[in-house]
Amino acid sequence: MKQILIKNAYLITMNGQREVYENGKLLIEDNKIKAVGNFDESIVSSGAEVYDAKGKILMPGLVNTHVHLSQQLGRGIADDVNLLTWLRERVWPYESSFDYEDSLISSTACCIELIRSGVTTFLESGGQYVDAMVEAVNKTGIRACLAKSVMDEGEGLPKAFDKAAQEELDTQEELYNKYNNTSNERVKIWFALRTIFNNSDELILKTKQLADKYKTGIHMHVAEIEDEVEFAKLRAGLTTVEHLNKLGVLDKNLLAVHTVWLTEREIELFRFYDVKVSHNPAAAMKVVLGFASVPEMLEKGIPVSIGTDGAPSNNRMDMMRDMYLTSLIHKGRTLNPEVVNAETVLEMATINGAKCALLEKEIGSLEVGKKADMIILNPNTIHSLPMHNPIGNIVYSMSSENIESTICDGKWLMKEKEILVLDEVELLEKVKNQAEKIRKKANINLTTNFKVIK
Amino acid sequence: MKQILIKNAYLITMNGQREVYENGKLLIEDNKIKAVGNFDESIVSSGAEVYDAKGKILMPGLVNTHVHLSQQLGRGIADDVNLLTWLRERVWPYESSFDYEDSLISSTACCIELIRSGVTTFLESGGQYVDAMVEAVNKTGIRACLAKSVMDEGEGLPKAFDKAAQEELDTQEELYNKYNNTSNERVKIWFALRTIFNNSDELILKTKQLADKYKTGIHMHVAEIEDEVEFAKLRAGLTTVEHLNKLGVLDKNLLAVHTVWLTEREIELFRFYDVKVSHNPAAAMKVVLGFASVPEMLEKGIPVSIGTDGAPSNNRMDMMRDMYLTSLIHKGRTLNPEVVNAETVLEMATINGAKCALLEKEIGSLEVGKKADMIILNPNTIHSLPMHNPIGNIVYSMSSENIESTICDGKWLMKEKEILVLDEVELLEKVKNQAEKIRKKANINLTTNFKVIK
Repeated sequence: MKQILIKNAYLITMNGQREVYENGKLLIEDNKIKAVGNFDESIVSSGAEVYDAKGKILMPGLVNTHVHLSQQLGRGIADDVNLLTWLRERVWPYESSFDYEDSLISSTACCIELIRSGVTTFLESGGQYVDAMVEAVNKTGIRACLAKSVMDEGEGLPKAFDKAAQEELDTQEELYNKYNNTSNERVKIWFALRTIFNNSDELILKTKQLADKYKTGIHMHVAEIEDEVEFAKLRAGLTTVEHLNKLGVLDKNLLAVHTVWLTEREIELFRFYDVKVSHNPAAAMKVVLGFASVPEMLEKGIPVSIGTDGAPSNNRMDMMRDMYLTSLIHKGRTLNPEVVNAETVLEMATINGAKCALLEKEIGSLEVGKKADMIILNPNTIHSLPMHNPIGNIVYSMSSENIESTICDGKWLMKEKEILVLDEVELLEKVKNQAEKIRKKANINLTTNFKVIK
Repeated sequence: MKQILIKNAYLITMNGQREVYENGKLLIEDNKIKAVGNFDESIVSSGAEVYDAKGKILMPGLVNTHVHLSQQLGRGIADDVNLLTWLRERVWPYESSFDYEDSLISSTACCIELIRSGVTTFLESGGQYVDAMVEAVNKTGIRACLAKSVMDEGEGLPKAFDKAAQEELDTQEELYNKYNNTSNERVKIWFALRTIFNNSDELILKTKQLADKYKTGIHMHVAEIEDEVEFAKLRAGLTTVEHLNKLGVLDKNLLAVHTVWLTEREIELFRFYDVKVSHNPAAAMKVVLGFASVPEMLEKGIPVSIGTDGAPSNNRMDMMRDMYLTSLIHKGRTLNPEVVNAETVLEMATINGAKCALLEKEIGSLEVGKKADMIILNPNTIHSLPMHNPIGNIVYSMSSENIESTICDGKWLMKEKEILVLDEVELLEKVKNQAEKIRKKANINLTTNFKVIK
């Protein structure tokens, strides 16, 4: 039995009452939270590690609900280009050149960036090498809902990605049986649907059946771009969401990502069926291009969470930046500075994220019995002082630079800015070398209108 | 004669040809640039300091064209509130409670945050204690165009701010004669006009005359909010910009800040008269609320630069964040991922900033004979590797965390993350204590809907 006592923190619990202790403490026992707030220290064992968090903020680990582990090494390959170029000339050639080793380095690097930005749980959109993703998650100590990317149709699809529906389903079922609840239950296996462009009705329907059978989630890009909705109408006479509704897929275990182009009726359908939503503000502005109706969805009680999307779309896996953007762009869009306030953003990034991960009973708040997933922020930097308003400062002034320590499943993954789970310097070298190799293999040439002298 | 040789850098000059040296060097002599790019090292003296920038990026210091030094200690006092509350219940009571010491600490803290985010020159919007601002600039080694805030009318104005036009003009003229070109020419004194809400025609006209007489600039908030344009129409039958045009104030020495609500004709007037523009994306989304027509203005050749605005509006004085936002929100607004690309953003933050400061012959690019104002970025972090595309990575992946060193006027202000001009830990303590005192004096009470337990 291992205990860690964290003392003297500004403690944001995110529990049902949203209690905040100006001077709070928390006791971890093994991988769970044993006590929170003010408690008698007689329950602390003599061998407990005691950590003084004076002047710092303790809060639940962040939940990033949309990540592409296998895109990490493609950061910067597709800036300032239109979506077709982005997909067909950059991201697909890059990703389809991958092998297991590439995927392992890409996934590991992504997990470390997530840990540095305060994320303790993430939801993977779906990649090719799930074994490599599991290995990275296992090694880095983070919590994740992983999925295989499945595509059984679609124009311009690289051969490596184009599979028969049943083959994709069988692979996913095998992965579920092999990996779900491994790594001390930190790994959950989900089913994935890429987009309506790339998935047949057969695949969509059978995916839903399997997800229900295994009581797990389905991760899908939904109403991401305007063209997608038009495509869906041509394909079956209905928008993406109306088509999913007809197929019976709108349900509490569907995580719909992006959801930029929804009608009012579709938002109402989401509410009715308790569909989960991942909002990706950075990617939405940079590539996906459109403002999702986030304040409107929150108003209806839909659990909207925040995701970063992948490195070529964002280009950071930085939840702190996307939390800030979530507030900022919706204030700008609605011309109302009071919408999506700092408290709402914290809810989206923690407890709503947990709901979207179908894990709200285990993570998302600091409460007795929940998993010990939490972060410590150090606000003592020139860019985040003074601290008249700690909740506001977290969202509007702090950045991942202020994330000082990350604890997941009761273990320090980063402690006072030092990554404890692997040799980070060695990883950075691997990232540089491997990324360069893949870009050459995929034959991607980037240009600039500046005059580069070799 | 002091020389600094910086070697082995990825060197972005921002000169007329936008030359980038993959392996470049630069020689500083006293406060100027003596050589750039590839040159014979016989000109380097034996006593020169040699700095190896291998694996790092060397580029011009950033120019932040809209800053409120005196708002720094008010970070977080006005989040998630409407504009009237922001101004009358939070910012005005806060700023009007200031004394010289408050202003000095506020200004010094702001300068250090700017230096940490890679800024070597900033333009102050106008504060009450210009002497304190000069003292802070002098001490921290940064370059600045400073101005006094002038207001001679307007509803709800605190008594401390409401002065007669001639008194305001006399004070500014005295400040110009006392401080312009002091601190080794790092300090320039500008004239300021707050807004059309707060400035009479007499003040506007005489300010223009004095600015022309002294060949200096005028810093003014223009077409910041929709209400302002409506107010201007009621006051004189014309929009803000049309009214300024009628008064003959649209000219090459006018810096118009925000410019959210411009008509096509007004943009054309800006182009015709070579008016300078400061775009403030973070503040525009969070408080000012509206999207300036930035791609459209750039298309016409108007020198649009970037500003952070003050701490209660942004809430960071972080040019790296506002550079990212500048690209992001206009891609989102125009639904075009190709607009405001990374190269354009670098131009806005350097050479366009220099034009807006009326200093394009002295700063804004790394060229022989210009002032030695530059920054070194370290991209070797998990959030900015791999570096397929360095220009893109600066804008989309890096943040102020990657700004490793800042040199202004030939002196290291920050070297490898260490602030060399003052004791930063001592400053942080002063910031905390002074900010708390002022908030109490100004009687500002902040609330949260979370349940805070003391």
